Amino acid sequence: MPAAAALALGASAQEASEVSAYVDNSYLFLIGGLIVMFMAAGFCMLEAGLVRKKNAAMQSVKNVALFSVAGIMFWLLGYNMAYPGDTIGGWIGIPDFVWSPEEDLATGYAASSDWFFQMVFVATAASIVSGTVAERVKLWPFLMFTAVLTAFIYPVVASWEWGGGALDSQFAFSDFAGSTLVHSTGGWAALVGAIIIGPRAGKFVNGAVHPMPGSNIPLAALGTFILWFGWFGFNGASQLAAGTFDDINSVANIFANTNMAACGGVLGAMFLTGILYKGKIDATMAFNGAIGGLVSITAEPLEPSMGAAILIGAIGGMLVVVTVPLLDKLRIDDVVGAIPAHLVCGIWGTMIVPFSYANDIGLNEAGNPSYFGQFVGVAACAIFVSVVSAVVWLALKMTTGVRPTEEEEIMGLDKSEIGLEAYPEFS
Amino acid sequence: MPAAAALALGASAQEASEVSAYVDNSYLFLIGGLIVMFMAAGFCMLEAGLVRKKNAAMQSVKNVALFSVAGIMFWLLGYNMAYPGDTIGGWIGIPDFVWSPEEDLATGYAASSDWFFQMVFVATAASIVSGTVAERVKLWPFLMFTAVLTAFIYPVVASWEWGGGALDSQFAFSDFAGSTLVHSTGGWAALVGAIIIGPRAGKFVNGAVHPMPGSNIPLAALGTFILWFGWFGFNGASQLAAGTFDDINSVANIFANTNMAACGGVLGAMFLTGILYKGKIDATMAFNGAIGGLVSITAEPLEPSMGAAILIGAIGGMLVVVTVPLLDKLRIDDVVGAIPAHLVCGIWGTMIVPFSYANDIGLNEAGNPSYFGQFVGVAACAIFVSVVSAVVWLALKMTTGVRPTEEEEIMGLDKSEIGLEAYPEFS
Amino acid sequence: MPAAAALALGASAQEASEVSAYVDNSYLFLIGGLIVMFMAAGFCMLEAGLVRKKNAAMQSVKNVALFSVAGIMFWLLGYNMAYPGDTIGGWIGIPDFVWSPEEDLATGYAASSDWFFQMVFVATAASIVSGTVAERVKLWPFLMFTAVLTAFIYPVVASWEWGGGALDSQFAFSDFAGSTLVHSTGGWAALVGAIIIGPRAGKFVNGAVHPMPGSNIPLAALGTFILWFGWFGFNGASQLAAGTFDDINSVANIFANTNMAACGGVLGAMFLTGILYKGKIDATMAFNGAIGGLVSITAEPLEPSMGAAILIGAIGGMLVVVTVPLLDKLRIDDVVGAIPAHLVCGIWGTMIVPFSYANDIGLNEAGNPSYFGQFVGVAACAIFVSVVSAVVWLALKMTTGVRPTEEEEIMGLDKSEIGLEAYPEFS
Repeated sequence: MPAAAALALGASAQEASEVSAYVDNSYLFLIGGLIVMFMAAGFCMLEAGLVRKKNAAMQSVKNVALFSVAGIMFWLLGYNMAYPGDTIGGWIGIPDFVWSPEEDLATGYAASSDWFFQMVFVATAASIVSGTVAERVKLWPFLMFTAVLTAFIYPVVASWEWGGGALDSQFAFSDFAGSTLVHSTGGWAALVGAIIIGPRAGKFVNGAVHPMPGSNIPLAALGTFILWFGWFGFNGASQLAAGTFDDINSVANIFANTNMAACGGVLGAMFLTGILYKGKIDATMAFNGAIGGLVSITAEPLEPSMGAAILIGAIGGMLVVVTVPLLDKLRIDDVVGAIPAHLVCGIWGTMIVPFSYANDIGLNEAGNPSYFGQFVGVAACAIFVSVVSAVVWLALKMTTGVRPTEEEEIMGLDKSEIGLEAYPEFS
Repeated sequence: MPAAAALALGASAQEASEVSAYVDNSYLFLIGGLIVMFMAAGFCMLEAGLVRKKNAAMQSVKNVALFSVAGIMFWLLGYNMAYPGDTIGGWIGIPDFVWSPEEDLATGYAASSDWFFQMVFVATAASIVSGTVAERVKLWPFLMFTAVLTAFIYPVVASWEWGGGALDSQFAFSDFAGSTLVHSTGGWAALVGAIIIGPRAGKFVNGAVHPMPGSNIPLAALGTFILWFGWFGFNGASQLAAGTFDDINSVANIFANTNMAACGGVLGAMFLTGILYKGKIDATMAFNGAIGGLVSITAEPLEPSMGAAILIGAIGGMLVVVTVPLLDKLRIDDVVGAIPAHLVCGIWGTMIVPFSYANDIGLNEAGNPSYFGQFVGVAACAIFVSVVSAVVWLALKMTTGVRPTEEEEIMGLDKSEIGLEAYPEFS
Repeated sequence: MPAAAALALGASAQEASEVSAYVDNSYLFLIGGLIVMFMAAGFCMLEAGLVRKKNAAMQSVKNVALFSVAGIMFWLLGYNMAYPGDTIGGWIGIPDFVWSPEEDLATGYAASSDWFFQMVFVATAASIVSGTVAERVKLWPFLMFTAVLTAFIYPVVASWEWGGGALDSQFAFSDFAGSTLVHSTGGWAALVGAIIIGPRAGKFVNGAVHPMPGSNIPLAALGTFILWFGWFGFNGASQLAAGTFDDINSVANIFANTNMAACGGVLGAMFLTGILYKGKIDATMAFNGAIGGLVSITAEPLEPSMGAAILIGAIGGMLVVVTVPLLDKLRIDDVVGAIPAHLVCGIWGTMIVPFSYANDIGLNEAGNPSYFGQFVGVAACAIFVSVVSAVVWLALKMTTGVRPTEEEEIMGLDKSEIGLEAYPEFS
């Protein structure tokens, strides 16, 4: 065999191997993204189940619509904002308008597979807001906020870390799949929205808190399971590659840890609820315990041992249980408990990352995030998202208005905004 | 190294590469098919949510049963009909009975993976009919129609293009994943069925249209999300291969375009509904907007730019909004809006394909479908499916009968056909 | 090219091929496991739909909680119990506590991917029990039983076959994906539980059977479809490898057969119900027919032809229809029909395996299970699971108690155990 042919054979084997990894990685993004896409259904079911029946059709439409707005805005602006060329001081990208795919074997994955995977993340952030401000926001103003969140707010925050911005390059901030970047971003936007919009009519009257129980608990359970299912894509595919021995092992370990954290979150929330409420296990606490556990492990699902993952999740679940009544005391009306599950657990999960690294199981020696760096990330997200969200919510309040009239709110948004009822025959 | 060994090494590398592609392609069919299989649950939820509660158990059973009939008939006859050896003039295959798998590395995929993927397509066509003729068809006659549809009607239409028949070979007809072959086929069968069976008792009385709102809008939202989720398998795996750089890029671009068309469909339908109905956003329009957008992009999800995909989907969503009242005017009773979403958008999506090619983004230069060729496909499907469906529905009407008595219909099919109620405690 | 370099190239090609198979196999476990994980949502929906509305929140919480307990117990003890080092006579493993992943290319898959896949199986067994004993068991005692089931009972049974124990080595017992090991194990535990706990208040009074229809049939249909969807992962990924021509063909054939058995189960149950009940098709029979068909094919989804798979499933579906009234006659109260679908069909599916091998389609010549070996497996499972379950249920009855007071039961467990109602506005 002539040397040239042998070299060609080697070159061809090299390229075959590159193509194989390119296919494996793209599959990871596409299947992971698809599973995360389904989380939109999970949020929709969770929220439709936890609002009162007079608002359940509205909540359903909002979830379908926000996913649509998120996709279009992320194509129009968001993706290029999150992965910018030039930036203003490393913090705000200067984007091109309109994204289109350019394939290159050297990138290691199909361009559109990455776009798709990132897009479903931005939709997740938007879904978080939807749940908190449910039952008293008009449809179109909510969608306008969603447009700004998905075109600008989330992409800027994501760019700091995943776009190679300041948090990544200057602070060694570490947030594997987005406890801060996705979940706290959604959580801060939700919190600021809840404060500016105000509570539902009748929620806090004369110093008393009036419970407004969700109308369909089995749907909320379904939503919880769908989110749990989707989270394997969320965290697992955030490994970003699956074509090598190390990468696929990492994906597998992430699956195991993600599950353990959810298990810990459920049982942590249930035990604490059982102790605090005389053995009665509020279903919403169990469900939000699962979500809180999942959010808590999202910042670092690879480094912890499985036992540590259970513990991180369990503390997340318990944080949900203690934060829910705290919000009531502060007269902040969070309809589905998204602030405890996504914001509080997002902060908790981010701040515990250095501990996980210090106690790692030897899978990943690179990078050593510090408590200071993590705090900078949490604080930067808090300040930026809160300020911009406040500006947008206030601007909407002063222009289009964000709330229906009290009469409409009491009648239910299904009738006033959607023109039909969620359950017309179940009166 | 002796030359022979090097050649053997080369041969082995060649075979390893073929096996690798075979595995990748089969995975694509299996996972894509699995995701499409789940669309059966989506149709079931959409339809159970959009019928009145007295028919929701019947609708659920119908969906489980039709999927079962489809699988068995496609094994018994349909698959061999769709991929025939001999044909009558290139239009009607002469099939063998009973399919069984024969594996061959040269085909590039596992035989059963292709069978499975094609089977879930035929079930989709059957699900479309189920929604339109809901609330006034008896169970067994409906399943008999389903048997003919899945053993004969759909397979013949599919054979014209995917079985290498006349539309493919003589007219360069192009229908990537089946806007015409699957969705319009289901749509024509549904339309003819709705006409022959007639409207529900009380729907059109003395020239007035009586709205019969769906009983469970959150379930319909769930169905919409499941269908959206499933469509990535429907369109993505219709690339038929994923083991090369070009193929996986195509799958990724199809994912992105499929999503954008759905987003466009939702927002197109919502904007137009908002304009036409004084700001009220009928939930069913938003949901069918998503489905309409998805059907519209199905004929060509690869060629258009993402912006064009949004536009194609948005027009689809608007077509849904204008077609729904048109059917009411024609006194055609389509319970879930399947005719607008699947038939009208199926035609629209098919006819816009040549435009997409003329404005393509350079991914695929092969084939140049023409407006004439597309029209021939649309018309052939219309004529064949309508005529055969009419014959079958009329034959059923004259033999078993297709409708329950008016008394049974008013009581609800849950009681008359299923013997239990969908929601016995919610009266 | 020097010979050494050529050999290195060969070695590298060899390793690339091993890595590629390792990735493919791990993907199979992860995606298969993910799909099976979603079956937890399916059981939850099926059960929440088939209980009365006063217990639907409780049933939802139970399903979320049992999945959490299963994950933690399988990490703590179960996995090491199922794959033990030393055993007591080949029947009971001597486990280490706490599992942690150790990756090795030679195993052919990522360690955590296997753990994850096995874990979702144990959760399935636990879900089966949940449905049978619904509506009259307190939450914490049920979860304690779940802990024993998932840490000890199921793992011991699984170890006999999949852990290389006595059934595998001494009796050539064959149970591909667990008709006996998973489904009958859950079924026996459920049956013994139903007997020891007793029927629901008011179910059997003065010799009469009082039907207590499920509250939400569309949710039960959703659960059925989710289980059907998940079963492709359950059976398909039990091939345990997908990186070769033979393996991927087997996975594909398993998909096809699994689907056909479900189709057969639905239609078998529907035909027999139609005959026995004057044409009325009880929805729960159709749904449990699907599940019964799926359980029936689980012991051997690869060997049968597709026609045989239909038949095996159809007989399973008919067994469901005849067993449901039989349990009523025996005064055994199985709320969702899990004993017919999982236990009876699990036995049927296991006992028919030798027949499938004798009539195989040539895909797998290895192993020739005998009716005697199969019977030994069925009997060993029956005795071990029944005895240990009885001990555990009786111990719980005598310590914590397992039933709520009759007053609480009549009020509904949602109020007494969960403290909120599933559908507070639908009264």
